[in-house]
Amino acid sequence: MEDFKNIFIIGVGLIGGSMARDFKRLLPEAEIYGIDSSKNHLEEAVGLGVIDHSAGLEDLHKADLVIVAVPVDQANLFLPPVLDAVGEDTLVIDVGSTKNSVCEAVAAHDKRRNFLAAHPIAGTEFSGPTAAVEYLFSGKTMIICEVEKTTFKLQEKALSLFNALGMRLRYMDPQSHDKHIAYVSHLSHISSFMLGKTVMEKEKNEKDIFDMAGSGFASTVRLAKSNPATWTPIFKENKEHVLETLSEYIQNLNSFKDFLEADDYEAIYKEMKNANHIKSILKGIS
Amino acid sequence: MEDFKNIFIIGVGLIGGSMARDFKRLLPEAEIYGIDSSKNHLEEAVGLGVIDHSAGLEDLHKADLVIVAVPVDQANLFLPPVLDAVGEDTLVIDVGSTKNSVCEAVAAHDKRRNFLAAHPIAGTEFSGPTAAVEYLFSGKTMIICEVEKTTFKLQEKALSLFNALGMRLRYMDPQSHDKHIAYVSHLSHISSFMLGKTVMEKEKNEKDIFDMAGSGFASTVRLAKSNPATWTPIFKENKEHVLETLSEYIQNLNSFKDFLEADDYEAIYKEMKNANHIKSILKGIS
Repeated sequence: MEDFKNIFIIGVGLIGGSMARDFKRLLPEAEIYGIDSSKNHLEEAVGLGVIDHSAGLEDLHKADLVIVAVPVDQANLFLPPVLDAVGEDTLVIDVGSTKNSVCEAVAAHDKRRNFLAAHPIAGTEFSGPTAAVEYLFSGKTMIICEVEKTTFKLQEKALSLFNALGMRLRYMDPQSHDKHIAYVSHLSHISSFMLGKTVMEKEKNEKDIFDMAGSGFASTVRLAKSNPATWTPIFKENKEHVLETLSEYIQNLNSFKDFLEADDYEAIYKEMKNANHIKSILKGIS
Repeated sequence: MEDFKNIFIIGVGLIGGSMARDFKRLLPEAEIYGIDSSKNHLEEAVGLGVIDHSAGLEDLHKADLVIVAVPVDQANLFLPPVLDAVGEDTLVIDVGSTKNSVCEAVAAHDKRRNFLAAHPIAGTEFSGPTAAVEYLFSGKTMIICEVEKTTFKLQEKALSLFNALGMRLRYMDPQSHDKHIAYVSHLSHISSFMLGKTVMEKEKNEKDIFDMAGSGFASTVRLAKSNPATWTPIFKENKEHVLETLSEYIQNLNSFKDFLEADDYEAIYKEMKNANHIKSILKGIS
């Protein structure tokens, strides 16, 4: 990984910017370049010391490592020209939240073997270069898809980089990734966004009602602060799986509602008791 | 508040037990008695030093202060005999999560003026005497209902006690309390319980999928660890308001689903952007 002298981050937001911060610590000799569609974000990222230089796609020929951390629909469009622009030994890693469409977008590319599809299960509800923090990835899971399609040499470099970030590695095919991530991540975001909407709509004329809100409410609506510019493309790219999870969620809520309407408190108790099993599953996630 | 020499806690769980711990710190001279339908909980509470003695309803005649912290449907049944048993100068405070039915249960009681209806917006997803912690109420809101129905002298003692716990006081009628708390607390719990159910049902044969779950998922399903024995009676007592919030929530989820099915990403973006306003509302809640 010490071969990474010129590192390019495309998309210097929460994920790309946090990686840049860790790279600066781990590879103090490297130069970190940022590329972003927002000039403001680039200036901000340089000002904050997240990246060393702002750059353009025309500079990619000198890259040893490229991290693509842009909204997932843009990644599909960006990746082929990025691969066109880089050298024979450059590693290009996409770190978006859906993996099937990016893998398809590069499947037939001449430089497919320079590419690695990865998804760090790390983040916060904040966004942009100011949200970039060191050690965001430490102790977190990195899901890697189609690892066998990347050259051995670049696989090895990527893995040593992820290990240096302190990540646990998990391998998965992109279809399974997108299916399961809809349950354990995408659905949580919709549930939270719509919970925020429901409460704000109802209470819009009674601002002081939020004095009644405790930490439980704050916890369940935390994700409603997330960036719509990130999440709209995720729902678009993973539409089928998201619709499936959402339908099941709505069905479960309707059945809870039916029990309550029918005064079937035994059933309500049982539903909650079963959901309590999440305790043992969540151990270790914080 | 120094007049409280003999304090009785009925229900030595998360809320009652945490109050007991704070009282021991604030009133080191006082004796703290616990009453609970679970003998195990009582023994555990004595062993942990949460209470000084276990007691029965027949000991209530010597109480200066009684905290009723039992499931809300039991509070309705318990409060009249508790008021029957206490002396003329005893303060009885109910600290349950719904307020309308308890206020109705004591409305015509001879000792109505010994009673204060209160709801501390404080808690965790844990339960029982082991969940009892000091300073749980510090900086939190205490909602007080029908304060004018309590004698001046006991009002004053209660308020000095709540101030000593470090709480912000808010006054509200019990109907409004129950209506608004359905939005900012009860709905969050249902959303979380059903999210846990949906994900566990789907992923029951794929335990290692939870390696894919990050802090966002943990945050939205945290409340699914809550005690069904506490929450079933809350949903029962506040049925009408809970059904209203739940219907609106399901309606919002359905409309999000319709937008996604119709590929209306502009509408999806707008929904999330609007929900982002929760940021400014949540400031100060943690």
